[in-house]
Amino acid sequence: MTLSLSEVLEQIGERAASASRILSQATTAEKNEALLAIARRIEQETPAILAANEADLQVGARNGLGSAMLDRARLDPKRIQTIAKSVREVVHLTDPVGEVLREWSRPNGLKISKRRVPIGVIGIIYESRPNVTSDAASLCLKAGNAVILRGGSEAIRSNMALAEAVGDGCKDAGLPEYSVQLVPSTDRAAVTLMAQLDRYIHLIIPRGGRSLIEAVTAAARMPVIKHFDGICAAYVDRSADLQMAERIVVNAKCQRPGVCNAVETLLVHEEIARRFLPDCAGALWEQGVDLRGDSLTREILGSKVLPATEEDWRTEYLDLTLAVKTVRSLDEAVDHIETYGSHHSDAIITEDPLAAQEFLNRVDSATVFWNASTRFNDGAEFGFGAEIGISTDRLHARGPMGLEELTSYKYLVVGTGQVKG
Amino acid sequence: MTLSLSEVLEQIGERAASASRILSQATTAEKNEALLAIARRIEQETPAILAANEADLQVGARNGLGSAMLDRARLDPKRIQTIAKSVREVVHLTDPVGEVLREWSRPNGLKISKRRVPIGVIGIIYESRPNVTSDAASLCLKAGNAVILRGGSEAIRSNMALAEAVGDGCKDAGLPEYSVQLVPSTDRAAVTLMAQLDRYIHLIIPRGGRSLIEAVTAAARMPVIKHFDGICAAYVDRSADLQMAERIVVNAKCQRPGVCNAVETLLVHEEIARRFLPDCAGALWEQGVDLRGDSLTREILGSKVLPATEEDWRTEYLDLTLAVKTVRSLDEAVDHIETYGSHHSDAIITEDPLAAQEFLNRVDSATVFWNASTRFNDGAEFGFGAEIGISTDRLHARGPMGLEELTSYKYLVVGTGQVKG
Repeated sequence: MTLSLSEVLEQIGERAASASRILSQATTAEKNEALLAIARRIEQETPAILAANEADLQVGARNGLGSAMLDRARLDPKRIQTIAKSVREVVHLTDPVGEVLREWSRPNGLKISKRRVPIGVIGIIYESRPNVTSDAASLCLKAGNAVILRGGSEAIRSNMALAEAVGDGCKDAGLPEYSVQLVPSTDRAAVTLMAQLDRYIHLIIPRGGRSLIEAVTAAARMPVIKHFDGICAAYVDRSADLQMAERIVVNAKCQRPGVCNAVETLLVHEEIARRFLPDCAGALWEQGVDLRGDSLTREILGSKVLPATEEDWRTEYLDLTLAVKTVRSLDEAVDHIETYGSHHSDAIITEDPLAAQEFLNRVDSATVFWNASTRFNDGAEFGFGAEIGISTDRLHARGPMGLEELTSYKYLVVGTGQVKG
Repeated sequence: MTLSLSEVLEQIGERAASASRILSQATTAEKNEALLAIARRIEQETPAILAANEADLQVGARNGLGSAMLDRARLDPKRIQTIAKSVREVVHLTDPVGEVLREWSRPNGLKISKRRVPIGVIGIIYESRPNVTSDAASLCLKAGNAVILRGGSEAIRSNMALAEAVGDGCKDAGLPEYSVQLVPSTDRAAVTLMAQLDRYIHLIIPRGGRSLIEAVTAAARMPVIKHFDGICAAYVDRSADLQMAERIVVNAKCQRPGVCNAVETLLVHEEIARRFLPDCAGALWEQGVDLRGDSLTREILGSKVLPATEEDWRTEYLDLTLAVKTVRSLDEAVDHIETYGSHHSDAIITEDPLAAQEFLNRVDSATVFWNASTRFNDGAEFGFGAEIGISTDRLHARGPMGLEELTSYKYLVVGTGQVKG
């Protein structure tokens, strides 16, 4: 008897719920044991994983996938070694489960404590990169959660092989083999069915492009934590140290332009624009950056700078392109960021502490920087060890999402027979 | 020119977003001033509010609304006084905004701090009781959020009158008059349109019955925090102090049976069932409780106890009815709660600390109690001062939801010119 897709998902959901009850009670030692076993299994199964990946790549090439996508899906022995290493690194992260977040007593003698507990079952829907299979799973597992994964079709065989190694590792260590499950279907309907499985799944995290995130958000009945665009800005204030400003702007734009915490917009106070822009533009041009600017910027820098359109202010280039705007005040800078930015990472460069304070208070972004590059908005840079992404949402998790953000809490109330009067 | 419903909601959303930017920067004194002004306005406008309410009640009666619903919608001078008093009480609650949740430095010298900030714009969708208009609004406001309210049709005129007083109060105190807005339509489509306004609304809280909550959850594109059923259990362990157990069970069932933290299920360890049940049932019968039981319970208590069906274990009676089951072990009690309960409030009564510890760890509910009544799962009883409800969700807010749960956070990173290497 073959199960329908919806029956398959129901079964996966039930198994995840039952695994999560055991995982929520697992000790740190048991979870670490499982992570080490998973890393070993991934290493042992390298030939099988590579063979599965080869099959994915052949099918992908036949189906006309672009070379960028094929490259993202490609594994080799070194990449598998890196995958195993990432799993082992999670062993060293502090287990957040059980932490007492707050403890207090009430006048009637009740003792209340607020404790960190796992969320339960987490669904991860992702595209292309097979390493997400083990990276996301190991973080969720360390926080005591069961995981249901749904990867993209271009890596389905690789993901299956990796997920099998992960499940076997869990079993080796005495944890439920269904702690981590992969939806064995590339049918798009599986995403919708998963998004409606709120009886079992407590949180869905889509990792991928805008269309994937929007489809999941529209269909989901459970909470979704999104990792959306980074339309980030650096504002160079009139009181900025201009050399520092140039260093930060070049770093925030060029150090890795394809990521969400790179800046897409440069805002420059009019008063220092003529002193700042020529040098800064020179340094950016040296790195191959293409500039678009407002009229004063173009007056200062010349026609090499194309006019920035309304569209430019809203664009996440993810590339060596930067939109430049001069502003008459800090107010105008903040308004621009609030109007066009994506509330991700924004920086002010200034030596004036009052201006900095105002910017930090008023700019409503996950992380706001004073005299530092926006590229530091990152779990590792924050000291979280690893991250599942950078949340652009405001509820539960905002900014870098580490192990703590993969937990919930519950209240324990201890009495001596108290009843409500 | 009249606006379409969707244009009206767009305008409300824009105004709320703009108000929320100002509210997020408001000082505690400014917000308290506004709360006092709101209370004054509500008192001054008592005649207008009562006239609006009288019109609601007349229309309701003509439309055949039941007396329970009419009673929930009814206002009188005393109820309005209570409403104004509730608003004033919020003045005394600690403003959560600006609290430093964590502060640390990184080896590269960056100083990171995690600060509490308002969520932004909160949507509240509710039924019948007009006091929600000012209660929910004043809590959201104190936490620096703008609010969009959508009340039920049975109290639309009362809600409009109250919302006008609230908006006038905000204006009196120099805060934006659009800090609190009521959707001026009882069209069901307004709920769906509001649930899709994720460009402006960051969180929706539905307050009402299951069908309202499910409709909002299905339509919403933004996070929803639900306040669902309380299918709560008390487990009387074999090592319980039986007199204490009886006191707690009677309180948890009878002190206010119509609320979510009242117990619906009594689980009794077999070993003490014959000693415990007759006295406890006597006390419950004295309070008019109707018992349903499994076969051993009926053997002990007689045929006055109807047989409990599978349905009984899943029912939130919200009434003087209690389902009673004997269990062979703590394990069986935990399994029953995990299978049938709603993860709201569950209690163990025992003198055995190991049994208590196991129950508290394993029962996956918002609040778990040891030797205390489940009726204490409540914001006021926790010392939160006031609550917007008791969340049955696991993300962002779980259990009693007070002012802190109406906030988000952001990271402030202060450097001295650091760039990423």
